[in-house]
Amino acid sequence: MGKANAAPARGMRDVLPAEVALRDYAQRVILETYESFGYAHIETPAVERIENLTSGQGGDNEKLIFKILKRGEKLDLAAAQGEADLVDQGLRFDLTVPLARYYAAHHAELPQPFKAIQVGPVWRAERPQKGRYRQFTQCDIDVIGEHGEIAETDLILATVEALAKLGLSDPTVRINDRRMLVAIARSCDVPDESHDSLFITLDKLDKIGMDGVRKELLEQGLGDGPVSRLEELLAQAPSLDGIAPFADGLVGGDDGARSLGAIHEALSSALGADRLVYDPTLVRGMGYYTGPIFEVAVEGLPYSIAGGGRYDGMIGRLLGRDVPACGFSIGFERLIMLLEERGLRPGRAARLIAVLHPGQEDDLSPSLARAAALREQGHRVALVTGRKKRGKQLDELQRHGFDGWATTDGTADVRFFDEADA
Amino acid sequence: MGKANAAPARGMRDVLPAEVALRDYAQRVILETYESFGYAHIETPAVERIENLTSGQGGDNEKLIFKILKRGEKLDLAAAQGEADLVDQGLRFDLTVPLARYYAAHHAELPQPFKAIQVGPVWRAERPQKGRYRQFTQCDIDVIGEHGEIAETDLILATVEALAKLGLSDPTVRINDRRMLVAIARSCDVPDESHDSLFITLDKLDKIGMDGVRKELLEQGLGDGPVSRLEELLAQAPSLDGIAPFADGLVGGDDGARSLGAIHEALSSALGADRLVYDPTLVRGMGYYTGPIFEVAVEGLPYSIAGGGRYDGMIGRLLGRDVPACGFSIGFERLIMLLEERGLRPGRAARLIAVLHPGQEDDLSPSLARAAALREQGHRVALVTGRKKRGKQLDELQRHGFDGWATTDGTADVRFFDEADA
Repeated sequence: MGKANAAPARGMRDVLPAEVALRDYAQRVILETYESFGYAHIETPAVERIENLTSGQGGDNEKLIFKILKRGEKLDLAAAQGEADLVDQGLRFDLTVPLARYYAAHHAELPQPFKAIQVGPVWRAERPQKGRYRQFTQCDIDVIGEHGEIAETDLILATVEALAKLGLSDPTVRINDRRMLVAIARSCDVPDESHDSLFITLDKLDKIGMDGVRKELLEQGLGDGPVSRLEELLAQAPSLDGIAPFADGLVGGDDGARSLGAIHEALSSALGADRLVYDPTLVRGMGYYTGPIFEVAVEGLPYSIAGGGRYDGMIGRLLGRDVPACGFSIGFERLIMLLEERGLRPGRAARLIAVLHPGQEDDLSPSLARAAALREQGHRVALVTGRKKRGKQLDELQRHGFDGWATTDGTADVRFFDEADA
Repeated sequence: MGKANAAPARGMRDVLPAEVALRDYAQRVILETYESFGYAHIETPAVERIENLTSGQGGDNEKLIFKILKRGEKLDLAAAQGEADLVDQGLRFDLTVPLARYYAAHHAELPQPFKAIQVGPVWRAERPQKGRYRQFTQCDIDVIGEHGEIAETDLILATVEALAKLGLSDPTVRINDRRMLVAIARSCDVPDESHDSLFITLDKLDKIGMDGVRKELLEQGLGDGPVSRLEELLAQAPSLDGIAPFADGLVGGDDGARSLGAIHEALSSALGADRLVYDPTLVRGMGYYTGPIFEVAVEGLPYSIAGGGRYDGMIGRLLGRDVPACGFSIGFERLIMLLEERGLRPGRAARLIAVLHPGQEDDLSPSLARAAALREQGHRVALVTGRKKRGKQLDELQRHGFDGWATTDGTADVRFFDEADA
């Protein structure tokens, strides 16, 4: 009997029972919290048409698509000029692109505004590295069809509450607005066509520092004047209380400042004074954002645990008319890592008991009855065949999370491992 | 603004909120029931190495694999002779092949025996047809490392209980044993090399009738004698009470009959007298079964809603030593269709209330406070902007599952749609 390769595919991973229990628990808490805010859980397929994944909305993620080979007659290898002739579908790389398609296809059957929850795997063919996998879970909420800051406010409150229910009650929400970024760029005389590369560089601030940013911007051909002015403006950036007068000094910052002000006003009492912070350098990678953008950080993680923003243009592209939209995504894998580090264990009401069936030749009925009776009492009960070396078997059971054991002899009590021997 | 194609990829589908709520509920009930029997939830990735999917264990499903294109330098289109040179991975077509790999990779960290639950999507590129999709959810439990009928008994009891908790309390469990099928074939002088094709034909009995089966077997070259003898034996097949004397008249039926007898004895009191039925023509398609096989049928469905059996050979192929295994799979999509037909709605403790925010220009704080207060009272609360045409908005809310509404004016009560106007 040969031994075959049992490892998962490159960059993929199996999840062992203890982690799945934690994942199930966290997912249930998040789902229930979001449902308590009136969001509705939806599902989209893992596989999308390749055109829908390569429209440019996905940015760099479009380079990381797992592509699916055409099947049957559609696959014509001899005539294929390149990769594009071989594939017709791919695995989704996020939950936002499928959501936009979902809304465009089903908006007539959905409430207005539509508040959606999605939890599910996405796939990116990144270079595998420690702690990063090619399949990972995202957990998104989105409000579609709401222009006002009520959407941003609701997304932030619901996510902060979900994190608090998981014991992460010390969040900081950093917020910015794409229109403020544009206003700052214009105020520094950065030409519009250079805004994207400016923002990409600014996004690296926490990694390369202001010196690194300045160096990169000069290399990109921005003059010394604009770069100095940028540094000056960022240094002057006020707290949210002072956002309106700050914007007055910029070219066209009014709309962004008004949005930030409204969110600040709405959240200051609900969230606590210092929880919401203006970060004039927050960019967020995706090009589709059009208004407020925000991230949540918690103690113990060097990067944000959730992020999102307004993307008013994306759905219109599919639907043929403008539809405002705003979303927030929890980095589920980061969350699980953090909860594991903090030693969070899902509270289980029911203890796990092993009922030891005497031996393979014995009548099963008394063992089944014993297991059923203990289950009736509210325990989780696994029926297993007793081994000759009972001590060793009990050690194993305890190591694998069992709380106690019982025999088929109905008169003997359940013995719990955490009770001192009488 | 052009309108793009918003339909899902061919054969895939989106799931609307009402169905997702039902799916979440059914999945939670099944998961909790299986956990109460001591099964542990695990996760395997959607993507497997192509070698692991094409080892022959998957039968016809191996023809339906969604194959994933190689990436980067590994893809050499010019040198590719055929499909095999282009792909290195594929989407799993069932949960059993990944489970076998999972166990082989992680057995040292798992309890013995290992009782696993899996719930997740699988993909098969079948011709799309009404009600059948290319991505669908399977819900499996497996016992790995247990030779005795304690495994089959446990799988059947747990599954019957899970279905009963979903209101399907009228199940019939049909059971057979691959070794009984072999004994019957040998007793009819069917040569061993013709067993597989005999079983494939027998599996169609409910579709083509005994006349059709006879015709096909004769066409396959089985003589009139063996075919008549087969009909005779099947007609003589007893109830489970008489399985031992029936097997005495066969060539080598003892092991199969002993297993069926033990399962019958164990389940007759736990399950109710007529719930477990010997079906000598039950085959089940997959070639990997080695012992007892079983299916559950419920009223209102013309096909089985769950099926499984013992497959003692599969894991050994990967692990390099024999490991007994036995599994049961609920057809989750069929289950959901049946629950929808029966009008089952997930019971929700919390009612869904809309809080109408006066208008986009108004201060959000009172609306947030009102929503939070109602949430504190145990409601699910969606904060939405009130529209000028309130009557129309309330109609829409009711149509989309809201139970009531409230305004920001703290003194006004929640109005429930199902209460008659005072």
